Amino acid sequence: MKKSATFGIDIGGTNTTLGLVDGEGNCLFEESFPTQAHESFSKFYSRLSEKMAAILERFGNEYHLQGIGAAAPTGNYARGIIEAPSNFKWGKVDFVNILRQHFDLPVAITNDAKAAALGEMEFGAAKGMLNFMVVTLGTGVGSGIVVNGSLIYGHDGLAGEFGHTTIKPGGRQCGCGRCGCLETYVSSRGICRTVFELLARSNCSSELRQICFNDLTAEKIYQLALRNDGIAISAFEYTGKILGRALADASAYFSPEAIIIFGGLAKAGELLIEPTRRHFEENLLDIYKGKIRLIASKVANGSAAVLGASALIRKEIEKTGNGKN
Amino acid sequence: MKKSATFGIDIGGTNTTLGLVDGEGNCLFEESFPTQAHESFSKFYSRLSEKMAAILERFGNEYHLQGIGAAAPTGNYARGIIEAPSNFKWGKVDFVNILRQHFDLPVAITNDAKAAALGEMEFGAAKGMLNFMVVTLGTGVGSGIVVNGSLIYGHDGLAGEFGHTTIKPGGRQCGCGRCGCLETYVSSRGICRTVFELLARSNCSSELRQICFNDLTAEKIYQLALRNDGIAISAFEYTGKILGRALADASAYFSPEAIIIFGGLAKAGELLIEPTRRHFEENLLDIYKGKIRLIASKVANGSAAVLGASALIRKEIEKTGNGKN
Repeated sequence: MKKSATFGIDIGGTNTTLGLVDGEGNCLFEESFPTQAHESFSKFYSRLSEKMAAILERFGNEYHLQGIGAAAPTGNYARGIIEAPSNFKWGKVDFVNILRQHFDLPVAITNDAKAAALGEMEFGAAKGMLNFMVVTLGTGVGSGIVVNGSLIYGHDGLAGEFGHTTIKPGGRQCGCGRCGCLETYVSSRGICRTVFELLARSNCSSELRQICFNDLTAEKIYQLALRNDGIAISAFEYTGKILGRALADASAYFSPEAIIIFGGLAKAGELLIEPTRRHFEENLLDIYKGKIRLIASKVANGSAAVLGASALIRKEIEKTGNGKN
Repeated sequence: MKKSATFGIDIGGTNTTLGLVDGEGNCLFEESFPTQAHESFSKFYSRLSEKMAAILERFGNEYHLQGIGAAAPTGNYARGIIEAPSNFKWGKVDFVNILRQHFDLPVAITNDAKAAALGEMEFGAAKGMLNFMVVTLGTGVGSGIVVNGSLIYGHDGLAGEFGHTTIKPGGRQCGCGRCGCLETYVSSRGICRTVFELLARSNCSSELRQICFNDLTAEKIYQLALRNDGIAISAFEYTGKILGRALADASAYFSPEAIIIFGGLAKAGELLIEPTRRHFEENLLDIYKGKIRLIASKVANGSAAVLGASALIRKEIEKTGNGKN
C-alpha cells in the first residue's frame, strides 16, 4: 500500500519552496526556485505545476498525494485566495480554485506567518502547546497566533497583523499608508531605518557611516555588531526594546505559553533575542513575569513554512474526515 | 418533570448579584446585595449561601439546579480561584472547591469581562458570532475575547488584560505598578484624570473647575457634557481617541466581526461611542475599514455578567456531557 504525502508550498517574494512531506513531517523532497513575482501568476503557476508533476512522477509509485497546502504573503485561508501582496504583480489570485481545477484534491492556503505557526506546532518548538505566538521578522512583521490549540484567523481570515499594530502614533511612515506601525521598527528594513536615526543622533564613529540607505541591509548591521560596532549594537538594542514592549502588550491579550521568533532578522540570534527578552520582561504585567518563554524557532528556516503549509492541509483533511473537501 | 436552571453570580467590588437562570437565558429571579469586600470571604459566603438556599426553597419544586457559574474580578477559570482582587480583603479564594463542598454540582468561575462576553454570545449582541470582543469600561478596563467561538483564556487563565496594554510608554501611573496602561485613560477613573489634564491645559471656563479630584465622577462629567460643558465634551473626545486607537490595534490581532462596549462608562452612549468609532475607523488598517461593528451592549446592564456566568456553567456541563464534573 502507498504511503500518503502532501505538498507544502512556501511562496515568498523572492523564492518559492516546494516540498513533498510525509505524515510524520519528513520532507521527502524539497526544491526552491525564483518566484519572479513581477511576472503574471499564470507564468508562475505553469512553472510550479511542472515541478509538482516531476516530483509526483518520481515519488508517485511509493506515495499517494493527499492534498496541497500553501503559504503566501496575504494568503487568506477563509477565502482561499492570495489578496494582491504589495510586492507582487499578480493582483488577486483565486489560488485554491485554480489548483483544484488541476488536482482533484483538497487545497488550502494561508499566509507565511500562520503556516510557520502550524509548522512550529506540529514539528517545532511549540509541539504540544495550545497557546503560543509565532512572530516572523522579515521584510515585514507577521504573526501566527494559536489560542486553545487553533490558529486565529478572524471572521474574514485577516487576523494576526501584529506588524501593523501602532507602536508610535505619528511615528515612521509605513507601507500600509499609516504611521508608527511595529514593522517600521523591527523588520529587516526597520532596523536599517533605526541605524540612520542613530547615525543622525550620535557622533560616534561607525563603518555604517560609509553605507548609503539603499545599500544597507540587516545582514550588514549584524556583521558589524559582531565586530563590536557601537551603532550596530545600539540598533539591535533599540529593535529589542520596541519588539519587547510590543510582545509584552501581545501577552496581555493572549497570556501565551511561549513566543517563538522566526524569520530573516531572527537569524541574528541572541544579539536580537537578549535585548528583546530583557525589555519584554521589564514591560510585562506582574502576573505574566517569568512565565512566558521567548525563544528562537527550532524549525530549519527554509522548511518551517513548507512543513506548516503541509500541516495546514493535513488538518483540513482530518476535519473533513476524508481525502476530499 | 422539573425544568433545569443554573445560578449565575456576579461578584462586584460594591454589589453582588445572584440570579437563577433557566435554559433559555431567562432570569427567573435576581437579587443584589452589598459585597462588603472589606470583610472576610467566609462572611460573604455565609450571606451568599443563605440567599441561594432561600431561592432554591422557593423554586426547588419547579426547577432542578444543574450548576453554579460565577464572575468576579481576577476570577481565574483555569484554576477555579479568585486571585486576590486589589479592592477586596479576601486574599486568594479557592472558590470552586469551596462551593463544591456545599453543593455537589459543577461550579466554574471566570472574570466579569469574560462572563459578559459569554452573556453577549448566548443572549446579546454577539449571538451567532464566532469572533468578537467585549470591552468593559468600569473602574478598570477588561475584555472578553472570543475567537473561533471560544473565549481566550490563555495557558494559565490570565488572558484578556486589554486594560493593561500600554498606550503611552511612560504615561499615567497605573495601579498595576507600571505606566501608560489603557485603563489609566479610558476607565471611569481615567476620564476623571483626563478632565484634570484638560483643566490644566486650557483656559476655558467650566463647572468642572469647582470640583476637586476626589469628588469628580464619570457620571458628573457625563451630566456636564449633556449640558454642553466644553471640558466635559473634550474629555469624552479624548477618551474616544485613545480607546479608538487601542481598539484598532486589537482588531489587527483578531479581525473580529464586532466589538461590544459594556460597563459603567459605556452608559454615556453616543457621547463616548461616536468619537471612539471615528478614531477607531481612522486608525484601522485598510483591510479592516468599514467591516468591524462597534456597538454598545444590548444585554441589560446588571444582567450580562449573571447571564454570562450562567452560560459559563452551562457550557461546562455540555462539555462534560452530564450534570457533574
